Amino acid sequence: MDSRRFDAAVYARRLAAAAAAAADAGLAGLVITPGYDLRYLIGSRAETFERLTALVLPASGEPTIVVPRLELATFAESADALGLRVRTWVDGDDPYRLVAAALGDGQASAVCDSMPALHLLPLAEALGALPVLATDVLRTLRMVKEKAEIDALRRAGAAIDRVHARVPEFLMPGRTEAEVAADIAEAIVAEGHSQVAFVIVGSGPHGADPHHRFSDRTLQVGDIVVVDIGGTVEPGYHSDCTRTYSIGEPDPAVAQHYSILQRAQRAAVDAVRPGVTAARVDAAARDLLAEAGLAEHFVHRTGHGIGLSVHEEPYIVAGNDLPLAAGMAFSIEPGIYFPDRWGARIEDIVVVTADGALSVNNRPHSLVVVPV
Amino acid sequence: MDSRRFDAAVYARRLAAAAAAAADAGLAGLVITPGYDLRYLIGSRAETFERLTALVLPASGEPTIVVPRLELATFAESADALGLRVRTWVDGDDPYRLVAAALGDGQASAVCDSMPALHLLPLAEALGALPVLATDVLRTLRMVKEKAEIDALRRAGAAIDRVHARVPEFLMPGRTEAEVAADIAEAIVAEGHSQVAFVIVGSGPHGADPHHRFSDRTLQVGDIVVVDIGGTVEPGYHSDCTRTYSIGEPDPAVAQHYSILQRAQRAAVDAVRPGVTAARVDAAARDLLAEAGLAEHFVHRTGHGIGLSVHEEPYIVAGNDLPLAAGMAFSIEPGIYFPDRWGARIEDIVVVTADGALSVNNRPHSLVVVPV
Repeated sequence: MDSRRFDAAVYARRLAAAAAAAADAGLAGLVITPGYDLRYLIGSRAETFERLTALVLPASGEPTIVVPRLELATFAESADALGLRVRTWVDGDDPYRLVAAALGDGQASAVCDSMPALHLLPLAEALGALPVLATDVLRTLRMVKEKAEIDALRRAGAAIDRVHARVPEFLMPGRTEAEVAADIAEAIVAEGHSQVAFVIVGSGPHGADPHHRFSDRTLQVGDIVVVDIGGTVEPGYHSDCTRTYSIGEPDPAVAQHYSILQRAQRAAVDAVRPGVTAARVDAAARDLLAEAGLAEHFVHRTGHGIGLSVHEEPYIVAGNDLPLAAGMAFSIEPGIYFPDRWGARIEDIVVVTADGALSVNNRPHSLVVVPV
Repeated sequence: MDSRRFDAAVYARRLAAAAAAAADAGLAGLVITPGYDLRYLIGSRAETFERLTALVLPASGEPTIVVPRLELATFAESADALGLRVRTWVDGDDPYRLVAAALGDGQASAVCDSMPALHLLPLAEALGALPVLATDVLRTLRMVKEKAEIDALRRAGAAIDRVHARVPEFLMPGRTEAEVAADIAEAIVAEGHSQVAFVIVGSGPHGADPHHRFSDRTLQVGDIVVVDIGGTVEPGYHSDCTRTYSIGEPDPAVAQHYSILQRAQRAAVDAVRPGVTAARVDAAARDLLAEAGLAEHFVHRTGHGIGLSVHEEPYIVAGNDLPLAAGMAFSIEPGIYFPDRWGARIEDIVVVTADGALSVNNRPHSLVVVPV
């Protein structure tokens, strides 16, 4: 088996389930351009942008790939294995009419959330109607992971745990965040990922910016360092894990705040079980931090789904009334941020099981003190 | 100066020109999410997806950045330098209402071509009207390069020429396409690019697929090899150059077909001057190949614009009646493809000047014979 794809039977099953979901939603069908949904449905990693490539999946009838002739080779194999009809076009043709024809009767269609305006606006014109987001139709399918997907997430989790085990040796005072990040990137691949997804090394005041990446700042004794890292394992599933490090012994006030964060992360993990809403899991961490007077220092949602994409549904956020179901996979990653001073975050990827959360990350959650 | 951005004055000028173009088009303003247009207008390399970040540029009035609070740090510096208003939002808020408010009166807006359906559909709902593509408003600005942009494209062209000068030493029989591609990637960076954009090594039958990348196929004596490569030079401009190589002396029939291709590429370059349409340049190459009976072997357009993006307007394609203007930059890259046998392509990036085409690539155009 090609490790970059699942067996054709997996994709055939997903296509049938997506068509059935489209029918249930009263749609004529789905139109999916390159991106994670296309990869989910047929295993394609195509990245075309300005020339339209689209999978047209009618609620009933044959799925069709509309593809520029010069991209055909990219799809020939999967089209053959999955029995997709192929409609090629060349520069000068109107591919949106091909999509409309492949969709058949009925104009109510749904498009993938990544479809660019460049294609969505002319498609809406060709269809004579504004599509809706296919996210609503594909949500359950994409969110609830199959066994093979959970296996991939567990492999990814074990690989990133091995990287975190090595992080203390990289975090020497006098080195820059960028030097540390380069070592981590190398370790991400060495420990079993096919590629690096992202590396965040936020030291001292940089740790207070949740989306800082890394910089030329030099690590100093006394720094608190947020290390949030991830990579890809084949066929395309991701790791994403954060631990916070202290270079030398931390200030007692920092240690005390950190221990509250650790309890908040634990409370959110403990809140996970089928039927509980995503919002409730967010609240579990948020309420605990609020009780300790840290509400204003937790400036982001508690987590995000993960799979083919590093950020996908379900989002663990206030207002999300989605009930969790077995097989959903997402991060639990509360953080506390003190602008211009320091920040801390603890993140694991968990999978919902009948018994609660199964964590794919299993390194200790305490503040890791790097001896100096 | 930060080599990753131009001076603030460059972006201030672009913002003013884009607002004026929006006013001329009768639009209330532009809404630009992360991507090349945002980078063009304010120098931002933000890559956020699921949380809306958008530059709102009203036809008259102050430009505003709508940004998730946790992404604020990414924009603080440029917002300050360019005098942008900042409107932050947190998970749970409705950022589309912030965009509508920042747009002011009038619902007729235009969006960047990369805006994903995820944001475009709710934005259309908040505005109560379907936007149009900002491409039409930004086209002239983006297509006609300023001197600093042309300088960057010339630096990129010289750098990729230096890589092609080294390609023959990589193309040894017995090596795989992937091994050659790895050497080329290293050379792309070593010769002055900040990163690799793409590497195509299409040997023998693989050369007949214009979008082949590279594979484990082993190079053989007698192979014709298409090498199409590019990288990025700061602040974000691209090279893109193709030469075709023969491992050992080519078959005389191949050499003859190649010489026709070479004349076709020359004819298209010679056709370039201000006022001539893009379609006319495409026809110059296509007609010459058609006269030689090779029409069906040239399966793609003649070229594409280049700048911050590797593929952008103007597209040199049949049906494009756009008159060329001084400062436009694009590829001229006819190719001929014989399925399952071989292919060839010759590509230069040219800039339109008052006197015709200025090529930023200056390696010889003949079939490069690698001695064996």
